[in-house]
This record gives sequence, C-alpha cells and structure tokens, in this order.
Amino acid sequence: VPSDKYYGAQTVRSTMNFKIGGVSERMPVQVIRAFGILKRAAAEVNQDYGLDPKIAKAIVQAANEVAEGKLNDHFPLVVWQTGSGTQTNMNVNEVISNRAIEIMGGTLGSKKPVHPNDHVNKSQSSNDTFPTAMHIAAAQEVNEVLLPGLKKLQNALEGKSKEFSQIIKIGRTHTQDAVPLTLGQEFSGYVQQIKYGVARIESTMPRVYQLAAGGTAVGTGLNTRIGFAEKVAAKVAELTGLPFVTAPNKFEALAAHDALVELSGAMNTVACSLMKIANDIRFLGSGPRSGLGELILPENEPGSSIMPGKVNPTQCEAVTMVAAQVMGNHVAVTVGGSNGHFELNVFKPMMIKNVLNSARLLGDVCVSFTDNCVVGIQANTDRINKLMSESLMLVTALNPHIGYDKAAKIAKTAHKEGTTLKEAAIKLGFLTSDQFDQWVKPKDMLGPQ
Amino acid sequence: VPSDKYYGAQTVRSTMNFKIGGVSERMPVQVIRAFGILKRAAAEVNQDYGLDPKIAKAIVQAANEVAEGKLNDHFPLVVWQTGSGTQTNMNVNEVISNRAIEIMGGTLGSKKPVHPNDHVNKSQSSNDTFPTAMHIAAAQEVNEVLLPGLKKLQNALEGKSKEFSQIIKIGRTHTQDAVPLTLGQEFSGYVQQIKYGVARIESTMPRVYQLAAGGTAVGTGLNTRIGFAEKVAAKVAELTGLPFVTAPNKFEALAAHDALVELSGAMNTVACSLMKIANDIRFLGSGPRSGLGELILPENEPGSSIMPGKVNPTQCEAVTMVAAQVMGNHVAVTVGGSNGHFELNVFKPMMIKNVLNSARLLGDVCVSFTDNCVVGIQANTDRINKLMSESLMLVTALNPHIGYDKAAKIAKTAHKEGTTLKEAAIKLGFLTSDQFDQWVKPKDMLGPQ
Amino acid sequence: VPSDKYYGAQTVRSTMNFKIGGVSERMPVQVIRAFGILKRAAAEVNQDYGLDPKIAKAIVQAANEVAEGKLNDHFPLVVWQTGSGTQTNMNVNEVISNRAIEIMGGTLGSKKPVHPNDHVNKSQSSNDTFPTAMHIAAAQEVNEVLLPGLKKLQNALEGKSKEFSQIIKIGRTHTQDAVPLTLGQEFSGYVQQIKYGVARIESTMPRVYQLAAGGTAVGTGLNTRIGFAEKVAAKVAELTGLPFVTAPNKFEALAAHDALVELSGAMNTVACSLMKIANDIRFLGSGPRSGLGELILPENEPGSSIMPGKVNPTQCEAVTMVAAQVMGNHVAVTVGGSNGHFELNVFKPMMIKNVLNSARLLGDVCVSFTDNCVVGIQANTDRINKLMSESLMLVTALNPHIGYDKAAKIAKTAHKEGTTLKEAAIKLGFLTSDQFDQWVKPKDMLGPQ
Amino acid sequence: VPSDKYYGAQTVRSTMNFKIGGVSERMPVQVIRAFGILKRAAAEVNQDYGLDPKIAKAIVQAANEVAEGKLNDHFPLVVWQTGSGTQTNMNVNEVISNRAIEIMGGTLGSKKPVHPNDHVNKSQSSNDTFPTAMHIAAAQEVNEVLLPGLKKLQNALEGKSKEFSQIIKIGRTHTQDAVPLTLGQEFSGYVQQIKYGVARIESTMPRVYQLAAGGTAVGTGLNTRIGFAEKVAAKVAELTGLPFVTAPNKFEALAAHDALVELSGAMNTVACSLMKIANDIRFLGSGPRSGLGELILPENEPGSSIMPGKVNPTQCEAVTMVAAQVMGNHVAVTVGGSNGHFELNVFKPMMIKNVLNSARLLGDVCVSFTDNCVVGIQANTDRINKLMSESLMLVTALNPHIGYDKAAKIAKTAHKEGTTLKEAAIKLGFLTSDQFDQWVKPKDMLGPQ
Repeated sequence: VPSDKYYGAQTVRSTMNFKIGGVSERMPVQVIRAFGILKRAAAEVNQDYGLDPKIAKAIVQAANEVAEGKLNDHFPLVVWQTGSGTQTNMNVNEVISNRAIEIMGGTLGSKKPVHPNDHVNKSQSSNDTFPTAMHIAAAQEVNEVLLPGLKKLQNALEGKSKEFSQIIKIGRTHTQDAVPLTLGQEFSGYVQQIKYGVARIESTMPRVYQLAAGGTAVGTGLNTRIGFAEKVAAKVAELTGLPFVTAPNKFEALAAHDALVELSGAMNTVACSLMKIANDIRFLGSGPRSGLGELILPENEPGSSIMPGKVNPTQCEAVTMVAAQVMGNHVAVTVGGSNGHFELNVFKPMMIKNVLNSARLLGDVCVSFTDNCVVGIQANTDRINKLMSESLMLVTALNPHIGYDKAAKIAKTAHKEGTTLKEAAIKLGFLTSDQFDQWVKPKDMLGPQ
Repeated sequence: VPSDKYYGAQTVRSTMNFKIGGVSERMPVQVIRAFGILKRAAAEVNQDYGLDPKIAKAIVQAANEVAEGKLNDHFPLVVWQTGSGTQTNMNVNEVISNRAIEIMGGTLGSKKPVHPNDHVNKSQSSNDTFPTAMHIAAAQEVNEVLLPGLKKLQNALEGKSKEFSQIIKIGRTHTQDAVPLTLGQEFSGYVQQIKYGVARIESTMPRVYQLAAGGTAVGTGLNTRIGFAEKVAAKVAELTGLPFVTAPNKFEALAAHDALVELSGAMNTVACSLMKIANDIRFLGSGPRSGLGELILPENEPGSSIMPGKVNPTQCEAVTMVAAQVMGNHVAVTVGGSNGHFELNVFKPMMIKNVLNSARLLGDVCVSFTDNCVVGIQANTDRINKLMSESLMLVTALNPHIGYDKAAKIAKTAHKEGTTLKEAAIKLGFLTSDQFDQWVKPKDMLGPQ
Repeated sequence: VPSDKYYGAQTVRSTMNFKIGGVSERMPVQVIRAFGILKRAAAEVNQDYGLDPKIAKAIVQAANEVAEGKLNDHFPLVVWQTGSGTQTNMNVNEVISNRAIEIMGGTLGSKKPVHPNDHVNKSQSSNDTFPTAMHIAAAQEVNEVLLPGLKKLQNALEGKSKEFSQIIKIGRTHTQDAVPLTLGQEFSGYVQQIKYGVARIESTMPRVYQLAAGGTAVGTGLNTRIGFAEKVAAKVAELTGLPFVTAPNKFEALAAHDALVELSGAMNTVACSLMKIANDIRFLGSGPRSGLGELILPENEPGSSIMPGKVNPTQCEAVTMVAAQVMGNHVAVTVGGSNGHFELNVFKPMMIKNVLNSARLLGDVCVSFTDNCVVGIQANTDRINKLMSESLMLVTALNPHIGYDKAAKIAKTAHKEGTTLKEAAIKLGFLTSDQFDQWVKPKDMLGPQ
Repeated sequence: VPSDKYYGAQTVRSTMNFKIGGVSERMPVQVIRAFGILKRAAAEVNQDYGLDPKIAKAIVQAANEVAEGKLNDHFPLVVWQTGSGTQTNMNVNEVISNRAIEIMGGTLGSKKPVHPNDHVNKSQSSNDTFPTAMHIAAAQEVNEVLLPGLKKLQNALEGKSKEFSQIIKIGRTHTQDAVPLTLGQEFSGYVQQIKYGVARIESTMPRVYQLAAGGTAVGTGLNTRIGFAEKVAAKVAELTGLPFVTAPNKFEALAAHDALVELSGAMNTVACSLMKIANDIRFLGSGPRSGLGELILPENEPGSSIMPGKVNPTQCEAVTMVAAQVMGNHVAVTVGGSNGHFELNVFKPMMIKNVLNSARLLGDVCVSFTDNCVVGIQANTDRINKLMSESLMLVTALNPHIGYDKAAKIAKTAHKEGTTLKEAAIKLGFLTSDQFDQWVKPKDMLGPQ
C-alpha cells in the first residue's frame, strides 16, 4: 500500500487481480461520493443503535470528505472487478476507517480504533450498500445534470418556437415537400419531445428513490437491526434533499436492477428525441448554398482548413453521437440487468457506469447544444419565403374551388415546365390571377377550419 | 384486383412494388382492426360535420367488420412498404369503401356512392391515421394481452410466495452458497419485479393514449375541422373503453414516436425481469440428481428420446427466448424512433410491428409460463433442508458468540474435512453440541433483530 | 390429432402447452425444409449402416416432400417452444414416419413399419439435428436470397456509377457544401459498401457450413456410428450443392451458436450500409422544389391524397425500415447466443428465426430497391450544375493562386452579398474574369495532381 | 492557452464549446498516438514531394513524441466534439507544429517555421486523417491487446482440456442431467469458441488495414498528389509492422465506417463466447456445498465480510460484465455507422472510442481471467465421480440390451425411490448386478461406435 493512501490490502489486491482497462475505467466518482453519503448516514444511525459516538463522529467526518470528493485519489479500482462491487465497498471502508483513525490520532492500517468492517460497514453488506450507492449516484446525476440540462433545452426551444411563430414555411414529409406550417409549429414538436422526456425520466424516479440498505447479504437484513433500513433511507434523503425511501422488498433490490434498466430506457427514449431534433436542425441549416438553408446556425469555430467559409453543425454532431452512445449504453444495461442469478445481480458496477454515463452525457450535451447552438439559431426568412412561395404543394388549397383533378393538373404542369403554380394555373385557364391570390393563402393552411 | 377482394388498385400496386418477406410479414391484424375502429369513429364524427348519413352508416358498418376482424383476408400488404403506412391506409379506405358500396347496392370499384378518399378518408391523412391506429392497436394489445398476462403471473407467484413462506433454504450470491432465506422470500422478489413491471407499463400509457387524428398531413390539421380531433379521440375512447384523448401537439405525434419507444423500453425492462425469474427457476429446478434440485417443475411433455425420464424446463426456455426477442425488438424500435425527419417519421409500420410483437409475446408467454409451470412448482423440501443444514454459511450465526476468527476456522475446517459445521465446531473445542443447536438456528437468520 | 394431418401426439401436446403468438410465429418453413433435407440424408446414411432399405426408401420419399415444402401445413408449432427445438424435431419425425407409413401402406399413428424415433431419428438427437437444420436453412437463405439480392443491387449501383461518371456535382460533408466530386464517384462509394457487404457475408460462411449432425445429445456422438457425421454432412452437401462439412468440434456446435451470431453481425453491417445509401438517395432526391433535388427517383405510386403531384421515396423507406429491423434482430440473436449453458444452447428457435428473417428481408429489399428505385434513378443535371456552379466551396481552387486569406475573403463576400464567387472576386479586384475561368475548373478538382 | 501546453487556439475553443463529460471522456490516447504515426508518415512522404527537409525532420521528431505517448497531456479534447474529429486533428497539428517550432528554436504560437495547416496537415484533411488514425489505432489495439489476450486464453483452455481429458462427468442439457462426456471434451468446446473468435477477428482485419489517407476532404484527393495515398499507407505499414494499404475507394472510406462496424460485430461474437464460458465456469464451480461443485476455482481474495470462508467467482463476473459492455458498445457503433450522410460519416470519435474500448476490455479481461482463474481451475473429481455415478441418465446405455421401455422404467423407479439405477434394475428383475456393471460403462458412452 502506498504510504500516502488511505486504502488498504483489499484494495491493493483488487488492483493486482483486475488489470482491466486502466485509469479511464475507474469506478465513477459519483459512486464513490454516494458511498460517502451512505457511510455517513449509516454511522449516524449506528450511533442511535449504540455505536461509540466518538467513532461515529470520526466516521461521519471522514465519510463527508469522501462525499465531497476530497479523497477521490484514494479510489483506484476499476469497474471491472467483482460484480457486486464488494471491492469498492471495501475500498470505501478502508479509506474511511484509516482517515477516521487519522482524525482520532491512531495509526493507519491498525484498524484501531475504527475498524473498516466492524464499524464503517456495521449493519451493512456490499450486497446492499453497493446498490444503495448506485441509486444515490443515479438519482443525483439525474437531478443535478440530466433534468436541468433537459429543462434548459426545453426552455430554449420554447423561446425559439415563440420567436418563429409567424414564419410560415414549407412542410416536409418523407423528406419531400408538403403543405405549410410555421417554423414555430415545427419547433413546438421539439419542445413537446423534450417536455415528455422530462416526464419520462421523472416517471421512473420513484423506483430509483428506493434504497436497498438494510437488506445486507441476501435481502433478509441478517445482522442488522429493525428500523435500520428506514432510518438510513431517511438520513440519506435528508443529506441529499431527494425523496429516498427504503425499498419495500430487499430481495428484489439486491437480485435485480430493473429500476436502472427502466431509467436507462427513459434515457434511451430521450436519446431518440435528441437524435431527431439535432438531425432536423442540421438539415434545415444545411448550405450555405446547396442545402435546405432555412436555418442559420451559429458559427462557433473555423470551418475546414481547405474550404474557406465552411461552417459545420458541430453541436448537432455532438448531440447525435451522444444519442448513439446512450442507445448502446442502454443495451449494456439491459444485458446486465437480465443476467442476475438467485439473490444477487453481479453486473452492478457495469450497470451503474453506463447509467451515469448516459445521464451525464445527455445532460451536458443539452447544455452545450442550447448554449452553443439553439439560442443562436436564426431563421433565414428570405430563403424560407422563397421555398414556401415556390412550393407546388400549395395547390392543395385549390381543391375545394376547382377540384382535385384540375389542381393536380396545375401542379404537374408547373412541375414539368418549371413555372410557378400561379403561372400554370392562369396558363391552363382554370382561374384568374386574383382568384389565385385570394384562394392560395398559406396562412390559411395552418390549422383546421 | 382479384374479384373476391374488396381492395383496389393502390393495394395491388403495393403488392407488386414491395415483394418483401412474404405472408408472414403482413401488417399485423391488430393494426387493421384498429383502423376499423378509427374509420368508424371518423365517419360518425364526419356525419356531425355534414357527411351524408346514409354514407356514414354504410362506412360505419363496413368499418365495424374490419374492426371485428371479419375482413382480414382483404389486407395483403406487408410491413415493408412506405414508412408512413400510406398504402395500408389506402388498403383500408379501399376495402371499407367497396364493402360500403356493396352494402348500399353499388358496384365494386366504382367509388360510388362511397369514395375511398373523399368519404372514408375524409378529414384524415395517412400521416395522422396511421399513428392513430398504431396507438389504438398498442393500447389494446397492452390492455388485452400484456397486462392481463403479467397480472396473472404476478398472482401465481404471490400464491407460491405464500405457500413457500415457511420453507427455509440456503441463499446464493455470486451463484455461491450464502446465508439463508425462505423460499417464500425468494419468490417475493419475483413478485415485486412483476408488480413493478405492471407499474412500468402503466406509467407509459398516458402518452400512448394520445391520438394523432386531426393532424392530417403535417400536424396543422389542414383540411379538417375545428373539434374534429377531440371528437374522434372521444369516439375512439368510447368504442374501445380506453381513455384515449387527442394529442396536445400533433407535430410531435406525426414526426416522432417516442411514446412507442417509451412503451418498448418498459417492455424491455419486463423482459429483463422475466429472464431473471425464468433463469432462477430452471436452475433451482435443475437435476434430477446433479443439479440444485430445490424446485420440482411440472413434467409437461416426454423428455429426451434417448434419455428416459428426462424432464426439461421448457416453459422457462420459451420465456427466456421471448425475453431475448423483446430486447431485440426494442433496439429496432429505438433505431426507427430516432430516425424521423422533419414533419414525419417514416418507420411507422416497422415500429408498430415490433411493439405489438413484444406485447403479444410477453403477454402470451406469461400465461403459458403461469399455467404450465409456475402454478405447478413444488418445493423439494427434503433437498432444500439437506442443503440448508449442510451449509457452511450458517457459521455466520456464531460470530456474535465466539467471534469472526473462530467462526471462520470452523467453516474452513468443515470445508476441508467435508464434515458438518457442528462436527467441526465440537472437534475444535469452540463450543458444545447444545450451544451449537441453540445458536445456529436458521429461522433466526431471516430478518433484522 | 386432426385426421388430415401427419403429425402426432407430441406435436399436439406442444400446441397446447405453447399458445404463444399464434400463426405468424410459426417455425420458419426454411427450417422445416432444411429438416427434410437432413432427414433424407440421415436415412440414406443409416441405410449404409444397416437400416432396412424399404424403410429408408420411404423415409427418403417422405423427407423429400418435406424438403420441397409440400407438407408445410403439417408443421403447426411456434418458435416459442422448447429452446432446443425438440418439439419441431419430433414434429418432423412424426410427419415423416406417418407419411412413410402411408407410402408403405401402413396405418397412420401405428408407428409401424416406420417409427418416428427408431427410424426417422436414428443416430440423431434433437440437440444435433436442430442446429444442423439451422445451419442448412441459414446457408440456403444466404445463398438463395441474401447474396443474390446484394449482388443485384451492387450491379445496379455500378451501372449508375458509370452512367454518372461525367456529372460533376457539389460534395457535402457535415451535410454542408463542400468541394466537388462526380455523381459517379459518389455512387462508387455505395458500390464499395455493397461489394464489401458480400465479402463480409461470405467470410462468415465457412463456419455456417459446419454441421452438428453426429453429435447427438451432448456432442459425444453417443448412439451413433463412427463416420456417420462425415457421411451425413457430405450427403447434405450433395443435396444442397453447398460445401457443408461436419463440425470439427460437436461440443461447440451444440452448446454455442457463435456462427449465427457472426453471420448476424455481418448482416448488421450490411444493414448499416443500406441505411446510409438509402438515406443519401432520399435526401439527394428530395424536392421537387424545396429539397436537394439532385436525383430524380422513379414515381411508383400515386402520392398523397391531399397533395397532388407528391412523390415519396417509398423504396428507400422500406430499405431503412428493414435495416432497423436487422439491427434489432441482431441484438436478439446476440442475447440468445450469449446465454447458452453447459452442453446446450436453448435459444435455438429464436436465433434461427431472427437470422432467417434478416437474410430474407435484406435480400428481398435489395431486389425491390434495385428494381423499383435504383435502376430508374436519373440525375437532375440542371439542378446539379446550378448548385455546383453557385457553390462557394469552389473557392478552394484559388488558394494556390491568390492565397488562403484572399480566397476566404472572396467566399465570405459572396456569401454575405449573395453573389457568385466570380462576381465577388472581380469586385474585390483580386483577379480578372479570365483568370477566374481559368483557375476555377471543377473538373480539375476531382483527384490528386 | 496555458503557457506549458503546445496546443493552440482551436483546441482551446473546442474545450470551451464542448464541455461534455469531463476528463474521463477524452479522446482515447490510442487515437492520439495513431495520429503521431500518421503525421510522421505524411511528413516523410511530403518531403519526397518537396517539403523542406528541415521542417520535415522537425515534424517527424515531434510526431514521434506524440506516437510514443510523451505528449498525452497536450490533448485535452473530449470525444463529444465535431463528428469528423476535426478538432482533434487540429489539436494534433497545433501540438506537433509548436513542438517542431520549439525543436527548431522558434517561438511557440508563431506558426513559423512550422505551420499547423500548411506543413503538418499538408496534403491532408481532417476527413481523411481522422479515419486513418481510427484504423491505425483499432488495428494496433487488436494486434497488441485483443488477439494476444484471446490466444493466451485459448492456450490456457487447451491446457485444461488436455489435463481433464480422462475425467468423465455428467453432461447437462437444458441445465438438466444428461449423458456423460469428459471434462476435457467440455473444455474443448470453449477452446473451439475462442479459436474461432480469433479467426473471426482476423477475418475482419483486411478491411481495417485499408487507410483513407489521400482522400482529403471528400474522397477525391483534391490538393494532394498522385501517389501520396499509397506512399503514406506504405510508410504507416513500415512504422507499425502491420499490413496497411491505401483504401481502394476513398469515398467509402470517409462516408462510411462499415469496417469498424464489422470489427465490432466480430468482437460482439467473442463477447457471446466469453459470456457462455464464464457462466459455465461459475456454475460448475458453484458451492462449496449447495452448488454443482465440479470445479474448484482459485481463491483470489477474501470472501464476504459476514460470511466466513465464502469464495466468489469474481473473475467470471468481470468477464461477463465486459461481455455486456461490448454488446452495448456494438450497438453504439452500429447506430453511428448507419447514420452517415453524403461524403462524410460524422460519428467518428464515438465509433472509435467504442471499438477501442471493446478491444481493450476484451483483451485485458482475457488475460486477467486466464491468469487469475483458468490456469488455477481444478477438477473436483470426488464430486464429479459421485454425480456421474448417481446419474439416472446412464440408463441410456441399457436401451440396446433391454429396450427403451424397461430402461425408462428403471430410471423412473430409481428417481421415485431415490435409489441407484443398479438397485432399481435388480429390484425390477430386468438384469443382474454383473450385467449392469458390464453394460453401464460411462467410458463407453463418450463417442460414436
């Protein structure tokens, strides 16, 4: 054990037995910090049940430092260890006990007066603490990163939807020209997707707020005390400000992680929404000359080194790459979630790594996309008007006046001869210029009558 | 067009242009039947807005026959057609108009007095009717097949959990021996998973109950009437007994199918639960001599032709195969859901096919698993007791009395010498036979103190 | 048992125990037909080892009828049965024995003179026959549907690449305007993707051509004869014209289906290629007025009922839906392939269903796409020339003559003022009209110098 | 720009515009090092085409330092940037030019005498260099980590297969008792899976060895020289010792990354193999008292803190977690690979991150699994013999002597009464003790006759 580290033999042994992936594959710090919260909560509850207050106090202080991220360097283990996360739980126990020993003036490694198992892990097992830390970490990441990111994006899109509410543009179905709508209406669809995304995430959280703590080794709660589970959950709720409760069935809470599969599924849906929105925006902003060109996206960085003046929708690209990653993470979580056996699922570290990664990437990319793209989007109204006025699909407005067949003939004539609808209509003698202007009004095509 | 069919030219053209996959790839009948409901609802509402009551009545009758599945043979189109489902909408329009013409004494194919577009499709577009039919079909399959199946399984598992509540058995974590729990507790974890599965499905349904009808071509509702959307949704709700409402934002309802991705995600979570439960049951029932042997599963069919007396957990195998399929279907739905463009997602038929397949398979397999396996599961109490009493993990109960170190020495001695814990304990002189019997009581190890 | 069916009690029992999914979920006929081939081969080899030639002859005749698809109605079982496919093997044994009995003038159901187990299944087990049928079916579908479809598409794309070899167009990177290439070059990328797709599929086939037959129950070949495995594989090769050989390790061949996961992975790659190509073609063909409009796609069916003249890229939509399905199927195959236990993988029916579905859909959609779209694609040369000549990215050609900075200034000026590059260049006084014409030649920008 | 860093303004701008995921999401160092190799190769080839030898020499030296990983701290960008990896290419150009300037005694940031674009990026574009670096990095990781790991595992499994070749054990199909095989035969299946895994990876490499360099912006090779592509590929081959060649079609090489989807698919198959093997080994090693108990796995770390003597199959757990991750990564790669548009796929950084992650994790976990588990596996021969001799499935050997029906009766009697087969056989009077011993010989049941 390096002399400047608080961890002990079990941690070192894990580093030797699991040389898999290196530093970038370390257990996410969010899990470590969640463990800090849990260990503090457990120590305070254990004090109620008789743990020496001096020891409890030292554990609380040390656990707090873990929770605050001050001891991150003392957690060298990778995700690819035992599937219960036991080694990370022991890493935490070792670090907190040694730091607490230091606080109390003892000798590091002596296990006195604060023992990693007997005191720090009291009334706990890896099998219930690790899933508890998983839920705490996931809930915090959702509340601190994912939901704020989504709401920020929703607000920005709502702003654009209002800003663009009077801009009438051509619609596109099957990627082909269709009848008009406003640019505001188009953006309102994006708003709705993100708004529902928030609702989807939130609808999964009641089950994420359920904590396994108190189940110990197999879910029965052996070696813990009646009331411990409820008190720990209440304490964690107090420390985090999130509505954690004890899981009503600890067997399910250890043996399955359906709640995380569910949360991952909600994030997968959000990824679909973001992929759609970012794809639309980059296509609508494509150009400058040979694309659709209806939107003007912010120029954030120099374009190509060999193509002067080129601007790329790089924020959209980051969004769609994140979306693909979240879809992949979701499959990893699904496979892990389906392969638990008997009293314990042993894909825990892998599952939480992917859930946290999805939450973080989605939240961060929403902020980046909002700040560096969405808020700066401008409508290219000249282009929009030009496309809209040239559109053959406006002919639809003539159906009630001259019938479908004549309307179709106008559209086909204009298409074939490359003229406007109006020119074709007059040439064919189906109506007058005035009639055309009176009947073909895009702004009358934006809703039911 | 075959003379005994109600469909028309557009349907025939689709069969020629899309020779992909053959009969087994036809549009699911649930979609066709949902279209019947929708077309009936639309006709009734259109009558309020002025459609000739005689025509409306004939459409209603014909649509009803479609809804009841009486005309299934008239829908030959495959899923792999246009991504908006336009050709199926036209297939429906053709069939209903011709059948209505027949009812009214007209000539098939004459489009008089009931026109497929002008009357059957009135105030509608493929772009809003197909997603409406998708939601109706999905909601019905969920309510008629998936949820009843899950609840039936939940009930059966609850019955077993109670039946087995007094049977103490060895727990297993990491697939290895662990401290005891009751077989009832073990099954209670399964109950909780399925119970939450029901909750997960139900939590996604509010968004599935939202209907796109009234959005027509691009979501604006062009060519329909104010109030049409709300009235059609209300009529569909009345006809189905399900709480359908009109979608608050039609642009989202046409351009994205996040609601189905979300529902698929909930089914994916259920698949994980079922995979876990079925795996446990087949392993706990493995044997007859060389497996874990704690459960006795019903013998439903003769075993191997060359191995007399062999019984296989075939219901578990069907469950786990379905689970894998649902996970795959979910990825297909996800990819489709993420790839919509502008005003229309054009992966509609593929998405609904997979969603319906998942719902149907999950619901059916829950019923099959319940009836042919779960209700007949018996506990092999002799085997359970034997394994439990021989378990070295019971030594955990001695920790408070003789300390962890001596307890570990007992366990290791028994393991090495192949004796019981009691024999090892007495041989080592750590305690008496009476003390062992008094301290090592599995039934005291089933909960917190 | 219905009196007009050849199947027997074991088949009927399966229909009662596995009411899952209904008719559309039946075991694929390709598997049934492959079983016909295998049973014929086995009977012929068994005759070499002593099976009564009269019985062998009758089995061969009956098996042939199965192989030719004449008895498809006698195979009512669904995929969602036992995971070894045992019930389908018994269904085959029952049908062939009864049909052989009929041929020999016996009484159906009497098991005399042709016994389903003792004769039809002789030297076989479900555990080796089902995977053998899986490989035969997969190899045939690949060779008869998938590869011909891919090659047809490759040829059509090659034709277009040549046809379009002189058409210079604007390139697009990040969906934005970029330096030019020929339309033929663009299509050559698609050709390469499909060509490699063929190579990818073919590179997986050596392992698909390995047959499990001869492994019987657990891979040891118990109850079969030395040489049986090799002879059966040779016979199957002869009957199919495909290079089947006996699997070198039967334990792997029963317990894992990595070869099908691998094949599915190759098809997944092909799906990615097709998704890319179809997306490009529909975007390049978007319009008629407000899209990119560089390609003119065939008009295969009437467009929208409310939008006269609308043409949709429906073949592209079928392609992309199939691609999404194949990606989903691949995950189902992967999950099944990873979950085998000990001597037998029991996700067999599910796995082969998905593999066959992917092969069939990909092959069929390639043909449909080729015939109904690719061969009819026309270049919209007016539009292509217009976009190309207006492109600001041609300024890249000026870099060597006037430097990057002046070139960039020209591009930005033209962009800002909406003029051509030439106009901006002359206005800025950086070069003459002649110089511009001499230096900015798109056809000189199509390759290295 | 921090004064101690070689990167410049474009890198800094990217860090500001893409605050997504933090340090753990940085571009993999393997990509950075591959860029070092590529930039060196390009400089050497550029010298052939006229680049000032002094500048070329400095670039080569600086690029070498990048290739050796000495400058890793100068690459702060995350994966979630522009989808072409342009910003990482510029980061590389900036670092190499500044380091080269330093070598030549110039002023950092002056771009003199070594310009990041004009010299370091000469004849290159991000669009061809990034995919080139992707292929170099992937090929190196495959050759240095993945394949050696797989081969090491294959060798260890082969050793065990031989070591266990005489140990006859019960087989298990459907997780249920079946006829015997040797433990060596069982392990031979694992050997075959890994051996084929190596073949699968290798069969994809020809396409990974194809480099995009020379295609520049859109694949045409604009602004590069005839021969540049071939020479760079040859130089990279020389520097790496791997058989790189120039891609025959640069349009495909920029616009699609099918080669990486294919490689990922092969790794996905390997993941399935490993999941199966690790699952078998943990179940066969389950116990110590209440599991299958046929294998004794190495005890690598202390077991449970509350359950003395508990040993967990932690290496198997790491393997199965990695397998799940690789399956997830594969879906991310698939989604990214399918979503390229026109001349450029813009999911490049995400795709290579996942491919490298899969290769690294698989390779590392194979080594860890081999060293810490496989080589130390022991057969628990007492247990194996006991289970085998008690097995009811041995009755299969009696079929030829007393017929299937009597054999089945013996098995069922023994099962019902809990006796041995021999006891039941004698009790039923079907044969003598001697006959039983003579006929029921497991070692005669290990192969065909």
